Amino acid sequence: MSRDRAGVGSAAEPTDQLAMRRANLSRTLRYIRANGPRSRAAIAAATGLHKTTVSSLVDELSTRRLVRETDLEYSGSAGRPGRGVSLSPDVGAIGIEINVDYLAVHGTDLTGRTVIQKRVGYDATRGDVERCLADLTDVARRSLAELTRRGVTPIGLTVGIPGLVDAARGVVVLAPNLGWHDVPVAARLARTFGPKLWIGVDNDANLAALAEHAGGVAAGTDDLVYLTGEVGVGGGVILGGRLLRGADGFSGEIGHLLVDPGGDRCGCGRVGCWETKVGLAELLRRAGPGAADGPDRDSMPDPHHRIRQVARRIAAGDQAAVTALAEIGRWLGHGGAVLVNLFNPRVIVLGGYFAEFADRLIPAAQAGLAGLTVASTARRCHFVASHFGFTAAARGGAGVVLDRMIEDPTGFPLAESRPLAAV
Amino acid sequence: MSRDRAGVGSAAEPTDQLAMRRANLSRTLRYIRANGPRSRAAIAAATGLHKTTVSSLVDELSTRRLVRETDLEYSGSAGRPGRGVSLSPDVGAIGIEINVDYLAVHGTDLTGRTVIQKRVGYDATRGDVERCLADLTDVARRSLAELTRRGVTPIGLTVGIPGLVDAARGVVVLAPNLGWHDVPVAARLARTFGPKLWIGVDNDANLAALAEHAGGVAAGTDDLVYLTGEVGVGGGVILGGRLLRGADGFSGEIGHLLVDPGGDRCGCGRVGCWETKVGLAELLRRAGPGAADGPDRDSMPDPHHRIRQVARRIAAGDQAAVTALAEIGRWLGHGGAVLVNLFNPRVIVLGGYFAEFADRLIPAAQAGLAGLTVASTARRCHFVASHFGFTAAARGGAGVVLDRMIEDPTGFPLAESRPLAAV
Repeated sequence: MSRDRAGVGSAAEPTDQLAMRRANLSRTLRYIRANGPRSRAAIAAATGLHKTTVSSLVDELSTRRLVRETDLEYSGSAGRPGRGVSLSPDVGAIGIEINVDYLAVHGTDLTGRTVIQKRVGYDATRGDVERCLADLTDVARRSLAELTRRGVTPIGLTVGIPGLVDAARGVVVLAPNLGWHDVPVAARLARTFGPKLWIGVDNDANLAALAEHAGGVAAGTDDLVYLTGEVGVGGGVILGGRLLRGADGFSGEIGHLLVDPGGDRCGCGRVGCWETKVGLAELLRRAGPGAADGPDRDSMPDPHHRIRQVARRIAAGDQAAVTALAEIGRWLGHGGAVLVNLFNPRVIVLGGYFAEFADRLIPAAQAGLAGLTVASTARRCHFVASHFGFTAAARGGAGVVLDRMIEDPTGFPLAESRPLAAV
Repeated sequence: MSRDRAGVGSAAEPTDQLAMRRANLSRTLRYIRANGPRSRAAIAAATGLHKTTVSSLVDELSTRRLVRETDLEYSGSAGRPGRGVSLSPDVGAIGIEINVDYLAVHGTDLTGRTVIQKRVGYDATRGDVERCLADLTDVARRSLAELTRRGVTPIGLTVGIPGLVDAARGVVVLAPNLGWHDVPVAARLARTFGPKLWIGVDNDANLAALAEHAGGVAAGTDDLVYLTGEVGVGGGVILGGRLLRGADGFSGEIGHLLVDPGGDRCGCGRVGCWETKVGLAELLRRAGPGAADGPDRDSMPDPHHRIRQVARRIAAGDQAAVTALAEIGRWLGHGGAVLVNLFNPRVIVLGGYFAEFADRLIPAAQAGLAGLTVASTARRCHFVASHFGFTAAARGGAGVVLDRMIEDPTGFPLAESRPLAAV
């Protein structure tokens, strides 16, 4: 869980045999991931490694169950189908996001196939931190078991949290809307799942940004900001293809910028934070379900359910809802301009509930960018709606485990067939 | 002048013999720079390269005049002084900053010794872009000649500009306070100095941030923001040891954040930008030289001269000057909180005129951080005054040339003895 750092201009350099082996294992995996199944000869040609080295690397990766032999689609030079090496669907990872009003789970195998995807309403503000951790552990246990049942051995788990996370230590330093303060989430999960499972904790917006960069609407864009659209609003920032963390891992906390000194009180305790202008709570306060909608039949809140109610009001021409969205769009433009002036991204991805109302929010937000940014070229930045809904962070969480493993396969315990049978 | 980029988790990997040679030349130079003069045997032991390879690398670097043989201070194993390889003081670089009211020059050799350092008052707003470029070219020519005269052959030159710079193309896209728009500075200088000289152009705050990171008050800190304190105010951001650029190279433009919709008009054409609250023009408007100070005897404006006048007023208890600085300190805290929430730096370095009044500005600014940032740990960020005065950007400009050369020595023409004699 150490942070990925490199000095200005420095490059990772293997310094001994073991490090060289590790780098070559990673190189082989990355090459296959980028290019699909390839023969050992092709891997050797592309990486510049000797054929016998490649064979030994593939043997080790195979023992670790990270690659398998496969038939290549194209024919070999002798006219018969060649044998190739592909990433294995036998191992995978889980990402879980715990937010104010839902839990989301994403499970994937090493090839990137989605194996589990679900979201359930959950009231994280009911009960204390201990109860949340117990529920989180329970969801993790069931998700890991389900992945195993589907033939995919989990090698790791990342939890996404809407707050300030010390990812290096796996500690939630502060999650204002959950009411969490200095919660050692990784250590607590490790107590249950033991050393066989790699466990990470990260900020929800960071994980969502990674998911969008890897395979979402911002794929192919190396400079992007992801905005969560939940009760809280956070930013995950990727510049030059790298996730920004800052000195403590708290980069991107745009939700708590002071934008209105005379404004409403925020979950963080201060007044006038940007998230009080654009967060889901503000939309629901102004345009949410009221007496007219009848009693809420869900015992658990679910953002999707509430959002559908707002959408129905808008379809019915409810002026309060229309006005609320217009105002939120304007404030999105205000915050977007800050992001453009400071980060200069090419894309701002709108996640969570923002994506549901993108048609109404984006035109107002985009107009804000044009008026409030210094560089006309910086206005080439566009707001884009996420396709991942409320599961982007969970998806990113699973991806982070696999990325980490591909960076250093030797840093993970060997994926045994059923390591979690006893859990 | 291409930008330094790497994908998430990817590492630079030499792909052929030439690239491997380049990487090893760079590795040798970096090792000597980090550790001081070292014997060939020590270099071989530390880098894992074969002794004959190291000898061949050192020979090539010596031919390029980038290293020289030297007596090591400590004794060899046989009791006689060992022979070592050190960076050469025979080659160097120039950095020039052109700002609204001054020109600064810094010349250094490869060992980091300062050879030239000067600042002159200059009115960049008098006359058009062509005249500025002619003056800039003239200053560059004289500085390069002076470096040569002092026995240091210049291999490159970087110009720092207070504005949006496309560093990859060497074009100033927009410098509001200079009135420059799409000015191809690198191409114009290359017309005079030809292909023998590496020429770069970059944002002044970016260059200053690099200088502070390499050897200023933020040395040893990998997460910092540098704020220029000139007529304009810009930010240069280093996170995780890397300079942030963003999609177009415009990251860090904090000067043009809207902070007061009913405020004054900015050099950029809009109203209420942060720089109208904290820029040097605002200080001088409120507390600058007036009739009471007698006529300004300098034909050229020089920020230092004006700042000394404000300092004298403060020493004399002038209430307008004291109030102006208190107000500027408060706005510095406001902007600093934005930087802390979004970048999470450990240090915010105050450059230019801010540094001159650090005693008065920092307490007010630091209080702003405490009140306006979400994470108590993020409040571990501190404002610190630069020691480089108005020459930080020029210093960074010279450093950038040498960093680039050390990254890829083969990318520079061989440094001949007097390549610029004919200029």
